[in-house]
Amino acid sequence: MTATFAPPVRGIVAPTETIDTPTMVVDETILHRNIAEMAALAKSLGVALRPHIKTHKTPQIARLQLAAGAVGITCAKLGEAEVMANAGIEDILIAYPVVGEIKIRRLLALMERARMRVALDSREAAQALSDALAAEDRAIDVYVEVNTGQDRAGALSGDEAVALALDLARMPGLHVVGVMSHEGHANAAPPDQIEAKALDAGHKLVATAEAIRSHGLELPVVSVGSTPAAAYTPTVPGVTEMRPGTYVFRDTSGFRYGIFGVDRCAARILATVVSHPAPDRCIVDTGSKTLALDKTPSHPGHGYVVGHERAVIDRMSEEHGVVILPPDEPGFQIGERVEIIPNHICPAVNLMDELAIVRDGHLIDIWRVAARGKIR
Amino acid sequence: MTATFAPPVRGIVAPTETIDTPTMVVDETILHRNIAEMAALAKSLGVALRPHIKTHKTPQIARLQLAAGAVGITCAKLGEAEVMANAGIEDILIAYPVVGEIKIRRLLALMERARMRVALDSREAAQALSDALAAEDRAIDVYVEVNTGQDRAGALSGDEAVALALDLARMPGLHVVGVMSHEGHANAAPPDQIEAKALDAGHKLVATAEAIRSHGLELPVVSVGSTPAAAYTPTVPGVTEMRPGTYVFRDTSGFRYGIFGVDRCAARILATVVSHPAPDRCIVDTGSKTLALDKTPSHPGHGYVVGHERAVIDRMSEEHGVVILPPDEPGFQIGERVEIIPNHICPAVNLMDELAIVRDGHLIDIWRVAARGKIR
Repeated sequence: MTATFAPPVRGIVAPTETIDTPTMVVDETILHRNIAEMAALAKSLGVALRPHIKTHKTPQIARLQLAAGAVGITCAKLGEAEVMANAGIEDILIAYPVVGEIKIRRLLALMERARMRVALDSREAAQALSDALAAEDRAIDVYVEVNTGQDRAGALSGDEAVALALDLARMPGLHVVGVMSHEGHANAAPPDQIEAKALDAGHKLVATAEAIRSHGLELPVVSVGSTPAAAYTPTVPGVTEMRPGTYVFRDTSGFRYGIFGVDRCAARILATVVSHPAPDRCIVDTGSKTLALDKTPSHPGHGYVVGHERAVIDRMSEEHGVVILPPDEPGFQIGERVEIIPNHICPAVNLMDELAIVRDGHLIDIWRVAARGKIR
Repeated sequence: MTATFAPPVRGIVAPTETIDTPTMVVDETILHRNIAEMAALAKSLGVALRPHIKTHKTPQIARLQLAAGAVGITCAKLGEAEVMANAGIEDILIAYPVVGEIKIRRLLALMERARMRVALDSREAAQALSDALAAEDRAIDVYVEVNTGQDRAGALSGDEAVALALDLARMPGLHVVGVMSHEGHANAAPPDQIEAKALDAGHKLVATAEAIRSHGLELPVVSVGSTPAAAYTPTVPGVTEMRPGTYVFRDTSGFRYGIFGVDRCAARILATVVSHPAPDRCIVDTGSKTLALDKTPSHPGHGYVVGHERAVIDRMSEEHGVVILPPDEPGFQIGERVEIIPNHICPAVNLMDELAIVRDGHLIDIWRVAARGKIR
């Protein structure tokens, strides 16, 4: 299997004794470029940008996204939203069902501090939220989550989603303002099918929105994910909002889309070769506790060792990345440092307590991943 | 595929509004039983027990293990050892190469507070450590890591490991006191081969130790992992120490060994069904950000939903566990709580900030996972 990106590029961090390994380093220049580029894309398409902060979980980066023109942010969990609201962020979508009394109480408390909106995909969850809001004579904006082919959560696009939206719109305290989808099935498709599946998902969502409107609802928002489909789904006429996440950092899973290469990957794990027990095998100090176990069809193994595209992180345990080297690869020195781009940057960030921010090869700051581990 | 454990057992936590989900709950009674049982096994075999704390990363549990007779603990990373030393634990093995000046400095600092020993598998790492120790006229106990078939780190058992041990023993500041192996290849073998592979690994390690001793080294320690092989490898005459980890909590990966069932699993994720978009599909609020992505040949999917052995967590994204239900399964209510046993408990614990400790169905304490995320 051959990856489709351009071969060796320079590392973003000069080896330095001031950063121990493993550490996730973020190149500020690439980060800024990625943020500006997606903001420009959204603007050129005339859609609102509401990035998902699950990728970085870091208020400093959310603020950069807002400064570049994002209308607000997307979170999965209330705990992430609480961190972001504490950091002064005022417009937050919870793109995940808020279920259970404890969470409803937390949402109501958050509404005192930020303009909150929530996604819902069931009458049961909606009713409980409606009851709590109506009891206090309050209301919240709601997106109805629609399944356009991913078969994860969401009411099936078309009649099922229309019926759900109409039922929710009748519940006190719920203002149904939009529909929302995630094109995970398009992202996972073979490269030559991504565009078609992403467009199909967008058309299904827009058609569902039109059908809801035909019943008299205003429904101003038609919101789609994601980074891989960002060049396609938001181009469908009628889409009004996009929620990409991984674009700030990117990762090896994006190599397959052919729209960027290694030098657009802003976040990398600085790692050390700690063992070299055989000529064709060495160990880096990054296992599943650092890189996460996610695989990708874009790239063999568990991440890309920058500048060593034939070195494959063949398997991992929690603290060991087992790197298999081809016969003619010279191998590494024990103690040598390498940079590794994760296959999926979001879960890798969730394993970090902080990010080392680098400008022109120099460490300039440490940012705490303040919303890391917010599982509730 | 049919799992080999006994069908439905009771949950360990009564649904309670005082615990939000997802939360890792730990049943104190099962925990104590697991700890006592392994201590008794080690005692009956006449080997020292030095449990690996990567499973729990929690000082309270390490202290329970020591109180039950463990001679010390095993850590992978210095950061874990620092947390444990801060909690007053005085005998710590770092079963991972300590490479790089920053880490060597940290190790030397730790030696002021605890009796430290380290595993090494290369002359390069050993030389750097020897130089730092000799410069201060200090010394440390060293285990030579031996590869008995896992093909991860470690010098190959036999001549290669013997030569390495002798070279290290000549370095100032290094007291080579033992050999160490991990039987990961036995754990991963088909059930009917685990015992043979585990015993073979033990024999290889003991033979290597004997060969080293024939050159005049005393070498009192022959140390083996792990929980799955705990009934086999430590029975090999000549083994003096065992380092199991997962036994404190256990997980679905252990079902295959046939030595315990669900009611020996002390740690479970209390989860909520948050969406039920189709009769055969529902969503639990536990994705890879909670359960980790580890698969196991013991059990289909991404964990066991206690009492619902035919409900398969078929796929996960970070916040979604997609549960597929057989046609005759009644399904769940939205808001219903379930308990999920992870496939691999160690990385799941690393995703938790705290553990909810339960006794007889009542929450009695919250323990911080103090060594969580210590990647360095």
